[in-house]
Amino acid sequence: MPDPDRPLPLTVTSDRLRQAREAAGRTGIDALLISPGADLRYLTGYHALPLERLTCLVLPVEGDPFLLVPALEEPAAQASPAAGLDLEIISWQETQDPYAIAAARLPARATIGVDNRMWAEKAMAFQAALPRSRQVLAGPVLGELRMRKSSQEVQALRQAAAAIDRVHARMAEWLRPGRTEREVGRDIAEAITAEGHVQVDFVIVGSGPNSASPHHEVSDRALRAGDPVVVDIGGTTAAGYCSDSTRCYALGEPPAGYRRLYEVLLRAQRAQTDAARPGITAEELDAVGRDVITAAGYGEQFLHRTGHGIGLETHEEPYIVAGSSRPLEPGMAFSVEPGIYLAGRYGARIEDIVVCTPDGAERLNRTTRELTVVPG
Amino acid sequence: MPDPDRPLPLTVTSDRLRQAREAAGRTGIDALLISPGADLRYLTGYHALPLERLTCLVLPVEGDPFLLVPALEEPAAQASPAAGLDLEIISWQETQDPYAIAAARLPARATIGVDNRMWAEKAMAFQAALPRSRQVLAGPVLGELRMRKSSQEVQALRQAAAAIDRVHARMAEWLRPGRTEREVGRDIAEAITAEGHVQVDFVIVGSGPNSASPHHEVSDRALRAGDPVVVDIGGTTAAGYCSDSTRCYALGEPPAGYRRLYEVLLRAQRAQTDAARPGITAEELDAVGRDVITAAGYGEQFLHRTGHGIGLETHEEPYIVAGSSRPLEPGMAFSVEPGIYLAGRYGARIEDIVVCTPDGAERLNRTTRELTVVPG
Repeated sequence: MPDPDRPLPLTVTSDRLRQAREAAGRTGIDALLISPGADLRYLTGYHALPLERLTCLVLPVEGDPFLLVPALEEPAAQASPAAGLDLEIISWQETQDPYAIAAARLPARATIGVDNRMWAEKAMAFQAALPRSRQVLAGPVLGELRMRKSSQEVQALRQAAAAIDRVHARMAEWLRPGRTEREVGRDIAEAITAEGHVQVDFVIVGSGPNSASPHHEVSDRALRAGDPVVVDIGGTTAAGYCSDSTRCYALGEPPAGYRRLYEVLLRAQRAQTDAARPGITAEELDAVGRDVITAAGYGEQFLHRTGHGIGLETHEEPYIVAGSSRPLEPGMAFSVEPGIYLAGRYGARIEDIVVCTPDGAERLNRTTRELTVVPG
Repeated sequence: MPDPDRPLPLTVTSDRLRQAREAAGRTGIDALLISPGADLRYLTGYHALPLERLTCLVLPVEGDPFLLVPALEEPAAQASPAAGLDLEIISWQETQDPYAIAAARLPARATIGVDNRMWAEKAMAFQAALPRSRQVLAGPVLGELRMRKSSQEVQALRQAAAAIDRVHARMAEWLRPGRTEREVGRDIAEAITAEGHVQVDFVIVGSGPNSASPHHEVSDRALRAGDPVVVDIGGTTAAGYCSDSTRCYALGEPPAGYRRLYEVLLRAQRAQTDAARPGITAEELDAVGRDVITAAGYGEQFLHRTGHGIGLETHEEPYIVAGSSRPLEPGMAFSVEPGIYLAGRYGARIEDIVVCTPDGAERLNRTTRELTVVPG
C-alpha cells in the first residue's frame, strides 16, 4: 500500500474526455454539456466557480470538445489543468450570447446530456438556443466513470481520510463540560483546515439528546458530564477529494443503556465493513447492518440509509440504500455509517469511508471505532 | 438613518409567500417549485442544505403551499423560520418518491415555475412526475421581489458592508513586502469571519501584474515594494446577506502612470455613485463610468460590466450592464465597480455597494476610495 502521507500528483488527462465521449455515444447522447461542479473538475481538472455567467464544457461525440468561459474567467481556465488537455478554450465577451456560440457548433436535432447539477436557468437557455434538441441527464454517463476510482483517486481519498482522522484524534482537546457545541464546532473547523483540508464541509456536534438527531449541526447547548456526543465531520483537500468520518465520544460514563446500544451499533458497522466486497449489492450491504440492529430491537431507530459514495463530492454514487441492486465493484468508495437514534434521549453513529478492493474492502479511516470516553 | 451597528431582527413573514403566489399568478404560472438556495431562504427563512435528497417549497397559485423535506432534515426545517409560516411541512421517508408526493398535489397540466438554480436532475424528475406540465423559470417572479429590498434588508446589507469595511480598515496589518498573496489572503479570510460574517465568500488579492487580472484570486507571488494591490473581498452575515467591496493599496510609491489611471477610475466610480437614482437605467449607469474611462483613453481596458445586484446572493439582479434597459428603483442594491486593467502591468478596481433611495443612492461602504499607500 502506498504511503498515505506522500501526496501523489493527481493528474487529469484527456483520457477522461475520451471515456466520457465514448460512454455518451453508447447511451445515444450526441453531446455532453458540463457546467461548473464536480463533473467538470473530474473531466478537466478545472475547479470553476459557479457563476451566473456561463462556463461550460461542450463535449460532442462527433467533433472537437471545447470549454466555453466568460472572458473574465479565461485566465483562471488557462491556469487550470484544462489548458493541458485536447480542448479548445473559447472565451465569450460580456455582451455576447454564450448559448448561441455553443449552439452554432452543435447539431440542431441532438440528444444533449446536461450535467445533473446544471442550473435550470442554464439548461433552459440551452434548450431555447437548440429548440429541436432533447435534453437528458449526463449523470448516468458521468456517474459510471466517477464511481470507480482510479488508484490515484483512492490515494487522494486515503489522504483525505488521514486528515480527518487527525482531527478526531485531537477531540479530547475540545470536548469538556460547560463548552457549547458551537464552541467545540469552531475548534473542530479550525483543525479541519489545519490538518490538511482546504475547505470545511460540515461539522456536526450532537451532544446529549442532540445526538439522537442525525442531521443536527451545532447548537448553543453546553456539554455536560455523562453526555454522549456524536461528532460527524468532513472537509475537502487541495486535490478536491472529500473526507467524512463519524465517531462517538462520552464525557465520563454515558447514561444507562447507551453502552448496550453502542455495542449493537459497533457490531453492525463492523459486519458491514467486513461484508463489503465485489458482487454484494448496495441493498444487501445495507441489510447486513440493518439485520444486526433490527435483531437487537433497534430497527425502527436506524433512520437512514447505510451510506453514500464519496470522491470529488461528499455525497455521490453509489448510495448504499434499500432498493439499490447495484453490485459493488473494485474502486467504489463509500461511507458505512449505520446509526441508532432514540428520540429525545441519545443516539450514536459510526462512519468509515471504505473502498472496494478486488477481494474485500479497505477501510480508510483508522481511528478507533470504540466509544472514546473523555473526562466528564 | 438607523444605527448600522444595531442588528434589526430580520423576520420572514407569510407576506412573501403571498406576494410570490400573486406574482406567479399574474405571469400565468400555476405553481412555483423552489429548491434550496437564496429563493427558498427569501421566501421561508429556511437556509436549507443543497442535497441530493429533495427539499422543495411547493407554492401553488390555487391551494395550500407546503414544504417537502427529507425526514432527516425535518428537525432542521422545523427549527427554521419556515415553521412559523402558513405552510405545511411534509417529510418524506428514505424509500418514498418525493416527486410523486408533490405531483399528486398539483394539477396535471400545470405551468410550473422552477427556481433558476434548481439542479437539472430535480427539474427533470419533476417533469417526469408531471409529464403534461410545462416548466418555466421562476426567476422573473422571484427576481422582481428580491430585487427591491425592504428597509430590514437594506439594514442587513448596511451591517454586511460595515463588517467588510472593518476588514479593509485593517489591511495595513497584512500587506507587507515579502508576504505572498496567499498568506495575506489567509489573514483576510480570518478577519472576514472575525469582523462579523459567518462565511467567507471570496478573497482576491491581486498584486503587481496580477492586479491587471479582474478575477485573479490569490497566488504564491510575494508582494514587493511599489506594488499596486487590488483587494476584493466579501462574506455572508448571520442574517444571510452578503458584502462585497474592493479597495486598492500600494506598497510605497506605485509605478509611473498608475496614479493617473487611478484618478481616472476614481472619477468614473464617483460619477457613477453620484448618478445612481430612480429612473436611470442600468445601461445608462454603466455608460456614465465607461464614458469617463473611455475619454481618458482606457475604454478598452474596462473589461467588465459596472456591477451586480446583491442581497442573499453576492450576484443577483439587477445587473448594471450594457444592454439592460431596466430603470433603477428605490430599494435596489448593487455594486458599482468599474475597473481599468493594463494586461501584464497593473490594474485597479474600486467597488462600493449602493442602495437606490427615493432621491438618489446611499453608499453602504464607507472606507476611503482614495488609493491607500502602506509602507513599501
